[in-house]
Amino acid sequence: MYLETLGKAAKAAKYELALLDTNKKNDCLLKVAAALEDKEDVILAANKIDIDNGVAAGMHPGLVDRLKLTSERIKGIAEGIRQVEALDDPVGNVLDEYTRPNGMKITKVSVPLGVIGIIYESRPNVTADAFSLTFKSGNVVILKGGSDAINTNIAITNVIRDVLKNNGINPDAIQLIEKTDRETANEFMKMSDYVDVLIPRGGAGLKKAVVANATIPVIVTGDGNCHVYVDKEADIDMAVNIIFNAKTQRIGVCNACESLCVHKDIRDAFLPAVAKKLSEKNVELRGDSLTKEVIDCKDATEEDFATEYLDYILSIKTVESVEEAIEHINKYNTGHSDCIVTNNEATAKKFLDGVDAACVYWNVSTRFTDGFEFGLGAEIGISTQMLHARGPMGLKELTSYKYTITGNGQVRG
Amino acid sequence: MYLETLGKAAKAAKYELALLDTNKKNDCLLKVAAALEDKEDVILAANKIDIDNGVAAGMHPGLVDRLKLTSERIKGIAEGIRQVEALDDPVGNVLDEYTRPNGMKITKVSVPLGVIGIIYESRPNVTADAFSLTFKSGNVVILKGGSDAINTNIAITNVIRDVLKNNGINPDAIQLIEKTDRETANEFMKMSDYVDVLIPRGGAGLKKAVVANATIPVIVTGDGNCHVYVDKEADIDMAVNIIFNAKTQRIGVCNACESLCVHKDIRDAFLPAVAKKLSEKNVELRGDSLTKEVIDCKDATEEDFATEYLDYILSIKTVESVEEAIEHINKYNTGHSDCIVTNNEATAKKFLDGVDAACVYWNVSTRFTDGFEFGLGAEIGISTQMLHARGPMGLKELTSYKYTITGNGQVRG
Repeated sequence: MYLETLGKAAKAAKYELALLDTNKKNDCLLKVAAALEDKEDVILAANKIDIDNGVAAGMHPGLVDRLKLTSERIKGIAEGIRQVEALDDPVGNVLDEYTRPNGMKITKVSVPLGVIGIIYESRPNVTADAFSLTFKSGNVVILKGGSDAINTNIAITNVIRDVLKNNGINPDAIQLIEKTDRETANEFMKMSDYVDVLIPRGGAGLKKAVVANATIPVIVTGDGNCHVYVDKEADIDMAVNIIFNAKTQRIGVCNACESLCVHKDIRDAFLPAVAKKLSEKNVELRGDSLTKEVIDCKDATEEDFATEYLDYILSIKTVESVEEAIEHINKYNTGHSDCIVTNNEATAKKFLDGVDAACVYWNVSTRFTDGFEFGLGAEIGISTQMLHARGPMGLKELTSYKYTITGNGQVRG
Repeated sequence: MYLETLGKAAKAAKYELALLDTNKKNDCLLKVAAALEDKEDVILAANKIDIDNGVAAGMHPGLVDRLKLTSERIKGIAEGIRQVEALDDPVGNVLDEYTRPNGMKITKVSVPLGVIGIIYESRPNVTADAFSLTFKSGNVVILKGGSDAINTNIAITNVIRDVLKNNGINPDAIQLIEKTDRETANEFMKMSDYVDVLIPRGGAGLKKAVVANATIPVIVTGDGNCHVYVDKEADIDMAVNIIFNAKTQRIGVCNACESLCVHKDIRDAFLPAVAKKLSEKNVELRGDSLTKEVIDCKDATEEDFATEYLDYILSIKTVESVEEAIEHINKYNTGHSDCIVTNNEATAKKFLDGVDAACVYWNVSTRFTDGFEFGLGAEIGISTQMLHARGPMGLKELTSYKYTITGNGQVRG
């Protein structure tokens, strides 16, 4: 009943949101950014309750840090909203236009997706981020955050809803589900009468639960078992540099490298060099038998190759050909980002064509799979599925399209 | 276990299919068309078993007719495959290409979706149609047909697989699930490790079951509660003509009109005229109270407005404004096709912008929502969801994309 009320309100708001003009949306985004800074005290007070509760419950210091807002972090959130304001409106663009032999003119126009549900965990910055992206793209959002951050999320949502209300916009453009139990989450995933798309943002467990339970179409984002393949014709310095960057520059992100493939013909020169470099960050190596012939490391099991460590650990497989590398990668990757390092263009082409992933790199670190790095100006996530959008999703990926067809009485014979 | 074997075979085939060149695919499609005609005897013999079984089980004559193949129908199926052969290859097209400030070049290229699952009912022509479309777009297909058509489906699939095998192509590009029980169907819908997309083709019950049970991303197609709104500034003759066409030209199709909205200011002139015309086909009218003030008809209930009749029945709602028409349509439509008849451009624009449907028509019959009529050259279905594709889906809508990124050692700072 509670969720149905939210769902109905969202559906009512979506027709209004879809028609909002760009200036009105931009004006509102700037006002939301300012209001979040103005209401810093209220937000930080709510955040303190969440932090205190977390600490009292023995929350891991890393999680407490994720949860914590500061004056500076709120400024960062507001700045993010101002950046979204500056982006082009993805709605109302003519994507195609043509006239059929019978004289009817068909126009394909971008439109919002409608009502987007976002299920996320303890980062309260998602609340404002998700609003700015969905609002700019004319969508309505229903947020289901984690219980850890509930007070902070309520405070942020209220600030945003007040700005909307004061500017004559339906505040139900953003609604937060204030019940944080699992049953409510499961019920939410089945609200296909009201919600058009569901985007889970969080760990693998959350995403698995959403895929298993949802009847609403889901966009799966951020599973990243990313590979770098070092070909026999690789530049060894470049390869070491790319692996070091992709593995260690930031450890807990979905575009970090988790697994290394290396051609047997280059392993003797390459493996000791990369092992030495990675030892600077104490990266634990786990190799297959061909790898262990060259460097001393732990055994890599089947499970290792299937694991997104998000940690200072790297699995290593030695292969006899680029074909074997492609096969290995297609077996274990998550369709996110994989890379080849080689000076041979034909080999690179084989890899770029053959590896099934959203982003396939040639002599570039996998760490660039990111909406900002791709020039999209924003990012709601990295899709690892085939439907709708693949790879970094910006504003355009939060739209669908409609056809309008105009004529003068055409009927079908 | 049975399904897992099929799933693994499909996944193995998909990497090969994705790389097949256009000539090879076209050559194969022509050979499949010829083989289906050559093997007419085998197919018709298998079809006779299904027909005899159906008749013995008391199958409805309409269903028997759907199930029945003839020499002419097989020629029609082969002709359909030749038409797909003649279409452009949707795979490998550069959709976007640009270089980032750090020098890495990003290319967005169309790729197949991968493994497509199609669950359908008793029309055996779907078996060959679905193959031609998925094969041309580089996809692998797993078909789950109805038990009624199992012998026919096996015969057709075997002809196609033989052609593939004889031409050096992995025959697992097409596989038919030969177990037709419901349990197998339910298990199939959860094979997200092997199947990338599921497209149910059939009645509302089938689609509902798929949405409720599938963990594979689904494209919902063909729910069509389509409306025509006759504005106060409509040309009455045109409006009658469009309604008559949209309602009666073909009764059982998803783009047929199921509901009429009429502006109160034109009802006195329009409703008797349309009722008279529709009486030629004995269409049963069900109106709300404002409608019944003008014409004699049954009551339209809430349920009527929500029903896709696929029959000679039309619900009618009289409204006081275009806004009320839009609100009514957005409440009851299925996001398929809706139409306004008016001579007023501003009113038309309001309707085209405001109605939330894949195809919104101005002075054109809803019957044109169709891949061929839209010039797509083929059609796998009409999507009524927001994700991925909306409206008629042709070959392009059976693709996704990947990004390839090339550079010279870029790492992220």
